[in-house]
Amino acid sequence: MRVLGVDPGLTRCGLGVVDGGGGRAVSCVAVDVVRTLPDAPLARRLLEVSDAVESWIGVHRPDVVAIERVFSQHNVRTVMGTAQASGVVAVAAARAGLPVAFHTPSEVKAAVTGAGRADKQQVTAMVARVLGLTEAPRPADAADALALAICHCWRAPMLDRMAQAEARAAELARRHKARLAAAAKGASS
Amino acid sequence: MRVLGVDPGLTRCGLGVVDGGGGRAVSCVAVDVVRTLPDAPLARRLLEVSDAVESWIGVHRPDVVAIERVFSQHNVRTVMGTAQASGVVAVAAARAGLPVAFHTPSEVKAAVTGAGRADKQQVTAMVARVLGLTEAPRPADAADALALAICHCWRAPMLDRMAQAEARAAELARRHKARLAAAAKGASS
Repeated sequence: MRVLGVDPGLTRCGLGVVDGGGGRAVSCVAVDVVRTLPDAPLARRLLEVSDAVESWIGVHRPDVVAIERVFSQHNVRTVMGTAQASGVVAVAAARAGLPVAFHTPSEVKAAVTGAGRADKQQVTAMVARVLGLTEAPRPADAADALALAICHCWRAPMLDRMAQAEARAAELARRHKARLAAAAKGASS
Repeated sequence: MRVLGVDPGLTRCGLGVVDGGGGRAVSCVAVDVVRTLPDAPLARRLLEVSDAVESWIGVHRPDVVAIERVFSQHNVRTVMGTAQASGVVAVAAARAGLPVAFHTPSEVKAAVTGAGRADKQQVTAMVARVLGLTEAPRPADAADALALAICHCWRAPMLDRMAQAEARAAELARRHKARLAAAAKGASS
């Protein structure tokens, strides 16, 4: 499975492509950071992010796109730009027919370092170690994008099993209700 | 000038097209609300909003797209979806080569009703009156989209004059600095 991880942002948008098999082995295919100028018009900046993601999807042909789930933080202005960028990235993936998964920052940290409150340095160090990189990816947005992709490689099988279990439970509940309805109908007729 | 006003949202995204001349006269060209299913995947919903805006741009050929500026509100979950939708709309406009303008809800209310704290009903009533509609546009998202487009028609000449004045001031400052630098060079040589 090839995953494009995206740490959405306007000033810096991290992009990382990781190949994963069934187990823990993962390898780095590509990593970069897209930057847009802070004084450029917002729509222009978002279009540049969109174009970059489309181009990465075209070049690296990922099976799935993993995006960091944005939360409201201290800086409302920044978080709005980040949310807008994440929406744009999700549409680029959906338009290419790719599934999109969202992971929260603590899910990513927990998956990669084992601790949901790990700091940026720990995440970067673990990403470099797990991917066997001789140099730590810089800046932090690049490391975060790779961490997201690794997180998705490792969480996806578990999430798939959960989705299947939920679908089975829903199907059982549906059949149970249908039997009850049939029994009620039989009793009343 | 033809303006496509967009009240961004995932569950309901308001779209309204208004024609405006130089004065206060404005007319309604089209208005509708795009809805996406709350239990559909987020990326899918955003793609539907993007496709709808692209289609409206293609059909109605606006000169500019006016989008409501999103602020952090009580409901963080809703505001994130709204911000993502607004980013997607801005990119659809930028990709079509159209300028994008953002107006805050209070700018829109002040422009249309004269009061920045007007309620939804007042806005809807004024939109209907200004556009000479026999029926008030429903739901509120449709009226809001038209209000945004009207607001842009009326604010754009003023915003243009301000932008020109700022550009002139920046040019004067640049020339002044250049003269100072030349004088300093002349004095030191």
